[in-house]
Amino acid sequence: MLIVMHHSATDEQVRAVTDAVVAMGLTAEPIPGSLRTAIGVLGNQGYVDDTTIRELPGVREVIHVSKPYKLVSRDFHPKASIVEAGGVKFGDNQPPVIIAGPCSVESEEQMLAAARLVKEHGAHMLRGGAYKPRTGPHSFQGLGVEGLKYLRQAGDAEGLPVITEVMRIEQLENICRYSDVLQIGARNMQNFDLLKEAGKTGHPILLKRGMSATIEEFLSAAEYILSEGNPNVILCERGIRTFEKTTRNTLDLSVVPLIREMSHLPIVVDPSHATGRRSLVGPMAKAAIVVGAHGIMVEVHPDPDKALCDGAQSLDGDGFGELVAELNRLIPLLEEL
Amino acid sequence: MLIVMHHSATDEQVRAVTDAVVAMGLTAEPIPGSLRTAIGVLGNQGYVDDTTIRELPGVREVIHVSKPYKLVSRDFHPKASIVEAGGVKFGDNQPPVIIAGPCSVESEEQMLAAARLVKEHGAHMLRGGAYKPRTGPHSFQGLGVEGLKYLRQAGDAEGLPVITEVMRIEQLENICRYSDVLQIGARNMQNFDLLKEAGKTGHPILLKRGMSATIEEFLSAAEYILSEGNPNVILCERGIRTFEKTTRNTLDLSVVPLIREMSHLPIVVDPSHATGRRSLVGPMAKAAIVVGAHGIMVEVHPDPDKALCDGAQSLDGDGFGELVAELNRLIPLLEEL
Amino acid sequence: MLIVMHHSATDEQVRAVTDAVVAMGLTAEPIPGSLRTAIGVLGNQGYVDDTTIRELPGVREVIHVSKPYKLVSRDFHPKASIVEAGGVKFGDNQPPVIIAGPCSVESEEQMLAAARLVKEHGAHMLRGGAYKPRTGPHSFQGLGVEGLKYLRQAGDAEGLPVITEVMRIEQLENICRYSDVLQIGARNMQNFDLLKEAGKTGHPILLKRGMSATIEEFLSAAEYILSEGNPNVILCERGIRTFEKTTRNTLDLSVVPLIREMSHLPIVVDPSHATGRRSLVGPMAKAAIVVGAHGIMVEVHPDPDKALCDGAQSLDGDGFGELVAELNRLIPLLEEL
Amino acid sequence: MLIVMHHSATDEQVRAVTDAVVAMGLTAEPIPGSLRTAIGVLGNQGYVDDTTIRELPGVREVIHVSKPYKLVSRDFHPKASIVEAGGVKFGDNQPPVIIAGPCSVESEEQMLAAARLVKEHGAHMLRGGAYKPRTGPHSFQGLGVEGLKYLRQAGDAEGLPVITEVMRIEQLENICRYSDVLQIGARNMQNFDLLKEAGKTGHPILLKRGMSATIEEFLSAAEYILSEGNPNVILCERGIRTFEKTTRNTLDLSVVPLIREMSHLPIVVDPSHATGRRSLVGPMAKAAIVVGAHGIMVEVHPDPDKALCDGAQSLDGDGFGELVAELNRLIPLLEEL
Repeated sequence: MLIVMHHSATDEQVRAVTDAVVAMGLTAEPIPGSLRTAIGVLGNQGYVDDTTIRELPGVREVIHVSKPYKLVSRDFHPKASIVEAGGVKFGDNQPPVIIAGPCSVESEEQMLAAARLVKEHGAHMLRGGAYKPRTGPHSFQGLGVEGLKYLRQAGDAEGLPVITEVMRIEQLENICRYSDVLQIGARNMQNFDLLKEAGKTGHPILLKRGMSATIEEFLSAAEYILSEGNPNVILCERGIRTFEKTTRNTLDLSVVPLIREMSHLPIVVDPSHATGRRSLVGPMAKAAIVVGAHGIMVEVHPDPDKALCDGAQSLDGDGFGELVAELNRLIPLLEEL
Repeated sequence: MLIVMHHSATDEQVRAVTDAVVAMGLTAEPIPGSLRTAIGVLGNQGYVDDTTIRELPGVREVIHVSKPYKLVSRDFHPKASIVEAGGVKFGDNQPPVIIAGPCSVESEEQMLAAARLVKEHGAHMLRGGAYKPRTGPHSFQGLGVEGLKYLRQAGDAEGLPVITEVMRIEQLENICRYSDVLQIGARNMQNFDLLKEAGKTGHPILLKRGMSATIEEFLSAAEYILSEGNPNVILCERGIRTFEKTTRNTLDLSVVPLIREMSHLPIVVDPSHATGRRSLVGPMAKAAIVVGAHGIMVEVHPDPDKALCDGAQSLDGDGFGELVAELNRLIPLLEEL
Repeated sequence: MLIVMHHSATDEQVRAVTDAVVAMGLTAEPIPGSLRTAIGVLGNQGYVDDTTIRELPGVREVIHVSKPYKLVSRDFHPKASIVEAGGVKFGDNQPPVIIAGPCSVESEEQMLAAARLVKEHGAHMLRGGAYKPRTGPHSFQGLGVEGLKYLRQAGDAEGLPVITEVMRIEQLENICRYSDVLQIGARNMQNFDLLKEAGKTGHPILLKRGMSATIEEFLSAAEYILSEGNPNVILCERGIRTFEKTTRNTLDLSVVPLIREMSHLPIVVDPSHATGRRSLVGPMAKAAIVVGAHGIMVEVHPDPDKALCDGAQSLDGDGFGELVAELNRLIPLLEEL
Repeated sequence: MLIVMHHSATDEQVRAVTDAVVAMGLTAEPIPGSLRTAIGVLGNQGYVDDTTIRELPGVREVIHVSKPYKLVSRDFHPKASIVEAGGVKFGDNQPPVIIAGPCSVESEEQMLAAARLVKEHGAHMLRGGAYKPRTGPHSFQGLGVEGLKYLRQAGDAEGLPVITEVMRIEQLENICRYSDVLQIGARNMQNFDLLKEAGKTGHPILLKRGMSATIEEFLSAAEYILSEGNPNVILCERGIRTFEKTTRNTLDLSVVPLIREMSHLPIVVDPSHATGRRSLVGPMAKAAIVVGAHGIMVEVHPDPDKALCDGAQSLDGDGFGELVAELNRLIPLLEEL
């Protein structure tokens, strides 16, 4: 931590700050400059709470050098992690994982058809929401436990592991029973109690970036899960909110190589929610793989025009088949890219 | 709903769209223009799910005229609502409500001191968090039920109603027992299950705007609560996330008069979280009152430099006293402003 | 400047960095921490270009303590500046300046009517655009020099100083001849050549914040003008671009008290462009005055429904008269607020 | 255009609106709904100025169906354009163009070395700034005409066409003389006078997206150039400003396929300015090609650590050589992707 004093700070004010640092059990190292004094803080084992410092007279700014996360950081865990879920591995030197399926579980038939479709075209994991976060209360809210059973059944029928979203703590038990991976959605990325309880289950978790979450907040959310002793976290970029409204969100692909530098956790990309437009899903999925994503998650529906949610961004069977074929031509090249 | 067809859409495509509209039980009114055809959709009683329309061939865009909320809209409830909570009234023609207190409940003594302080200087309601949403897991997380008791006890000692944040459904019972108002924080604004369960309690709820929530999403979140039969919702603007980082968030004061046009619900402003800087709290609090806020919520701590959270944005007793004195000079003038 | 090394940086890498700092004529002060080493840089007289440092092996981050502006900073010029333009003073302890008039100069008659109207209701300065920045080339682009003459003539007729926008360097001569204040618009805030040339004229300049400009960039743009020896700069907040689209922009009122802390320059607020909605102009104008703006700039048109641009956000005579009356009740109270 | 009336609008208000539409020479088609009336506007040949409508009593919202651009739109020009500049072709079915070179022209030697380097590794066009937009006035501002000559000379020496940025109208003549392509930077995307004058030259123009420009504004800016009779426009995505500060900007790759749907103009990507980090340039450049960019523009410097600007995001010769080698393995695959 570096404490920057005002240009006009008095010696006494500088002394008061160094005293406060010492009172926290840390070491203060004043650095007198030509324009102002700064005070380096040494001895901390991680992020320091600056509350008692920031508003002392004469302090202009407090600059943090340590980050509020540690377990997820590559600094302290240089080796990239492989997360295994339902027999599928996410991580370096593994083939990118293709997760596909409808936005919502709508019926037994729909899920069986969806599972058959995505399996046939080469998916490795089946997705489908039994509990749905919907912006307004007057929209379809999901089938609940019934939906979980259809999802599991469809996955088993085709030999695909499954993933589904958890929205509240009480759902954890059932979802852990029926699903190989727990998904925590963008709206819950900072639902800290849910993160902790999900962490305690030890189940593999796919954590989506909140729609206005910084990378630091995203990694800090993952830190909540790892802090509970659960290292099985897969990060997922799904677009951030910007001023641009032509696309649903702005897919921030640069976070993929950046997070791979900063963290040892695997990261996948969801181009369907990010763009909200069917025609953009394929290009952005391929781009995600090229920048180093460990997998992609795409919405596929046997009959998108009849989908109960997100039809406009869902691929149909042919569209998905074509995308997988293209990915399969691209992936072998990755080692040379 | 208006469906805009592509310039080059064929008659057959237009017909397929009107058929799809009719199949939804609605009426389609084609409007042939010189450059393209648009199709008006009539007969809907509210927001229409456009999934089955948006991706039909030849469709360029679907424009919604109805909003995804109705109960909160002033269109259907022209009279402004007064929400009463713990004997205090929020709404038009009521004196603005001043909610004050520390970020967190830290101890019995601290809460008693805080309550005495804010009461003495003129607050109408006491705030204090027993459950804290913290970005990283290594920060102070709140005292839980013990904290609720200290809050209640401090409020009772000074005759102040109290407000505190709920973070998960299981906390609702205890919080309803100890607190006059439930606060739902920015991070949980789209935690739809929490909204619904909180709605069912019938308890007054202060709902904060999510940090990247549009006004439409904010009002839709309130709609979840009203849909459960609970009309006692107070909206709260607390700053949105923008590219500007000198302040913690960007306080969007224009939403106050705008929401007063769009909705009948009362709205208050939290300048402490919005700015994150003590020196800006006073100016923005006064501005909030001038634009028509029905109250303000400010962080006040007996000893901000020792606060366990958000000390840098907390006022001390003197600062708060000065602010209330200024507000008391401003408020009588409001009728003429 | 503080250089933060990676956790795993070697002693040799630290030495290479300190050598590079010394080669720049500065002093390097290594601060070995328990987790990593940081290197303080001393001796600089202002902002240091970090290009040669940032990518040296082992460097994680470079943190700037000095800002890229100096002349506009209150650090080095603690006394607030008063800027006088056309006989009107902007600054501390001066009555807030009310600038009003139409978006565009449309005709001689319209400007005379507008001048009469705003003068009658209490404006101190007349605005009107002769050169218009329009998003698309198919919109009205302004009357040019003819418009400047109408503006001057209308101002003179009512004894009002005038302000108008400059869009390109060649216009400077004419605009300086006809207008008391040069306005540099949001889209040109980083048109650095225009800033410099406008600076050289010595004419008073109202500089609008770019729609996605940080405070640091805004102050740095003003620094360009002051660097040319022209201290007569009035800053103007006019809303920033965010994800919220219900208003044209998001008016960031917290910059007013913040910039008053950071800079000695006066700052005014334009609530018309910020909100884009007539009904919000009045509330936000009053709020601007309450947070300490040294003036406001509002669009007023004798007949807004016939305005060639921005009619939807323009006040008519009655609306403006009412706003000024309200401001006149508010302003005497400011000293006690 | 669709005019949406308030729920409570009277018949008289509806009539007044239809009268106003008719007065504009257009046709009004009222669409009475169960909740409110909307009025379709027909007969317009493009974007309609809504000023006289938006604020009529009873009007809730005006929705535009036509866009403020036409010449750049694929609607009216379905065939993709090929833009040729200095013997290089940008567009569909052409090999992606690689533009490379330093941020600034620093000296004759540096440019000759840079040209040799980028030519050797496979670039098709040489970049280098003679006039530099710098955030603060105290940074290196470019060599001016001298720089243009060095750039031309270096290009000629290696047989590479060149591109350089124009910042003000007076520079156009010289830049057209020395450079094959005019670049208009992000900060000048809405410098409408510069767009028009650059348009009049007929010279090929690379137009960068403004850092907070919507796609609609970006295409409207290009419309300014085409309106002057100059169809030789190459669009360039270079990152937008968001709340995320770990990268310099957020590269919005989804605009590439989207703009290819909306416009017939070619589009290239600048991953260097977008990310501001050397390690991200390669991954994002490859991703740009995969999503369909017609070229990339990257900063390459013979000795990045000594660069006078943007060294931190510049590749050195080896880094660039490796990137081009990777692109050359990727490009032949594009037809199958």
